[in-house]
Amino acid sequence: MKKQNIEVFTIAGGMKLAIEPIEGATTATIVWTVPVGSAGDPIGDLGAGESNVLSEIILRGAGDRTSREFSDALDRLGVQRATSSSGYAITVSATCMAAQTEETLQLLCDMYLRPRIEADALEASRELALQSLGSLTDDPQHFVSIKINEIAIPAPFNQHGYGSVKGLNALTPESLHASWKRRCRPTGSIMGVAGAIDPTKIRDLMERLLEGWRGVSVEPKETASASRGSIYEKQVSSQTHMCLALPSPREADDASLPHRLMVRVLGGGGMSNRLFSEVREKRGLCYSVGMSYGCGRDRGLSTIYAGSTPERASETLACIRTELARMGQGVTEGEFTRAIIGLKSGIVMGGESTMARAAALAGDLFRRGHVRTLAEVVATVDRLTLAQVNEHAAQELDPKRIDEGALAVVGPGPL
Amino acid sequence: MKKQNIEVFTIAGGMKLAIEPIEGATTATIVWTVPVGSAGDPIGDLGAGESNVLSEIILRGAGDRTSREFSDALDRLGVQRATSSSGYAITVSATCMAAQTEETLQLLCDMYLRPRIEADALEASRELALQSLGSLTDDPQHFVSIKINEIAIPAPFNQHGYGSVKGLNALTPESLHASWKRRCRPTGSIMGVAGAIDPTKIRDLMERLLEGWRGVSVEPKETASASRGSIYEKQVSSQTHMCLALPSPREADDASLPHRLMVRVLGGGGMSNRLFSEVREKRGLCYSVGMSYGCGRDRGLSTIYAGSTPERASETLACIRTELARMGQGVTEGEFTRAIIGLKSGIVMGGESTMARAAALAGDLFRRGHVRTLAEVVATVDRLTLAQVNEHAAQELDPKRIDEGALAVVGPGPL
Repeated sequence: MKKQNIEVFTIAGGMKLAIEPIEGATTATIVWTVPVGSAGDPIGDLGAGESNVLSEIILRGAGDRTSREFSDALDRLGVQRATSSSGYAITVSATCMAAQTEETLQLLCDMYLRPRIEADALEASRELALQSLGSLTDDPQHFVSIKINEIAIPAPFNQHGYGSVKGLNALTPESLHASWKRRCRPTGSIMGVAGAIDPTKIRDLMERLLEGWRGVSVEPKETASASRGSIYEKQVSSQTHMCLALPSPREADDASLPHRLMVRVLGGGGMSNRLFSEVREKRGLCYSVGMSYGCGRDRGLSTIYAGSTPERASETLACIRTELARMGQGVTEGEFTRAIIGLKSGIVMGGESTMARAAALAGDLFRRGHVRTLAEVVATVDRLTLAQVNEHAAQELDPKRIDEGALAVVGPGPL
Repeated sequence: MKKQNIEVFTIAGGMKLAIEPIEGATTATIVWTVPVGSAGDPIGDLGAGESNVLSEIILRGAGDRTSREFSDALDRLGVQRATSSSGYAITVSATCMAAQTEETLQLLCDMYLRPRIEADALEASRELALQSLGSLTDDPQHFVSIKINEIAIPAPFNQHGYGSVKGLNALTPESLHASWKRRCRPTGSIMGVAGAIDPTKIRDLMERLLEGWRGVSVEPKETASASRGSIYEKQVSSQTHMCLALPSPREADDASLPHRLMVRVLGGGGMSNRLFSEVREKRGLCYSVGMSYGCGRDRGLSTIYAGSTPERASETLACIRTELARMGQGVTEGEFTRAIIGLKSGIVMGGESTMARAAALAGDLFRRGHVRTLAEVVATVDRLTLAQVNEHAAQELDPKRIDEGALAVVGPGPL
């Protein structure tokens, strides 16, 4: 593994900036997160869905460029980019040839600091938001993941972010301008840059480009705890889609690593986990079954998804519950060794690109408050022991904890 | 860009092997294709879906290892792998740390040359295949892509490969063993290996591991030309999903590169193409619209997908048709320049990983009959001119050719 050296700065206005120069890379990636997420949207009719519309509309013209001019400018630099929005933030990820990094940063600053937010762009963005809201049920696998979040996560972080018809119709160019100015602030904003770049030059450039950008974004707070229990949505589909969710450690907890390993053995990392083997391979109960661990700054959630025929849905759920309970007794030494190898090779194989590193820098700063080199992450995995994993499994998957899990079902009939 | 040097061998039995050593890489990737695709499956009740079941069952035990032992052995080596099946072939892609390449190759040889194909594995695999066949309509975006292929591609290459209930139920361990032996032959098989490896050592190892593997696979032939026209499937969905398809150059044709550039300007490469701008951005007609170019050995197909509300579906289709006709007049110099930059940065940014290189080696050998270095691919793009693209666009998108396109619609009502 190459030697790594990450520098972290706080820009005058309060933005955190982490930079990792990567020798021999041909590209650079910028991942920039601003604290404008759906959990901070106006409630219900007042403007639910605001941040989703904002994440669309900030691409449609910025500074002295129209929508078309702005995207042409990025294209002339060969920038591959995407924006996304979550409960906490809007994030842009942009990869370019390293020589184009500074020009790319200038354009991204226009987008975040000087978005145009014009009336005709709002009409088209709203129309699209209404469409994606209206078509949520067309993808039952996605729909069941929305339903499980509703009951397994505390409000307002349990919202799907697509908003409501009335909420979307309440948005105006003026309300969006005001919201953007109030919510898109440097304190709470995070940027990760990785690639063939000079950290000092990038820092100086950002100080200059962000001059005058000031203020603190108000963080949304929990307003209600998760309701848990179960939820069923009837749908004319040929399969029954189910999601089971358990509260889990947050990223900064020491328990997050043993938990990640346990999830890998139980239902992650491809085709040799216990759920795959018991539910799919031995019994042919369902085509898709798997477990994932969403590991955030303030909380974590482990989710098992399965899609089965309606006739075999109850047996599928029973089989999943059996495996959850059995995991309380721990993993074998062979499972542990293979999962450690898989975790480490996954970290190394996927982890060296500028895109992976920039995302890791921004993610670590947000969820842990500090950055880690790839070598440090691997070293943490090397220190993990079988005893730690099994102690965690016994505690996390005792029958009482499993009963606290939430269940969402979408399909032609309830379970 | 690093210096590249690809070596191509023909192993005694007839398999083509392309190897690209990559200095400084930590991993190696193997992409291995065998000529067992759905177009060669028994027809209908006789065993449609055979190769899909085979692609599942060859993972379930091989040589002296049971299903569990086989996947544990790959896990102990930290191999990240996936199998897929298409009309022409079953492909395995496996990435490991470079030091594990030889052991990984031994396991993959067991899988292809000595699969167990046992009765209980068949029962579970068949059950899964029946489920995925039965749930095709649950994902209307995928379903409409199956429907467009049915009418836009000549038989038997137009089949979706999931088979039929009777066809799947006709399969027995004996029939699968016999089919595998007859169809999985070295002539027609292709392997690409890229990473921190020694080409001579890999070639010698493969000569040894494949000793005694002999024979030629019978290639499926076209039995009927594409029906074209249009097809509609009624479905209770909130959106209307549509696919428009045009016959296009195959990979080895000189026209494939100007065509690729034209498709990028019209509907590819992210968020600044014409369809995105006209259909989504200006009119807000649909959330998803895009064009892709499937560019095969024997034929090519360009496909435009859009998902819209039923009320706006006709307007969406009309707008797409207008843009197709307008493209017949060619692209502007600005569009050309930006698309060339985008094409090249896409090739370089995504193209240097061992996974991308191994897939490119196998893909080039299959579709072109020879390999190309990354630098050669970039040089071809550099030689392309605006005049070539516009000559191609005028020829490819004249009104008569557009009328020859096929249309598939899935939704609550026809267009």
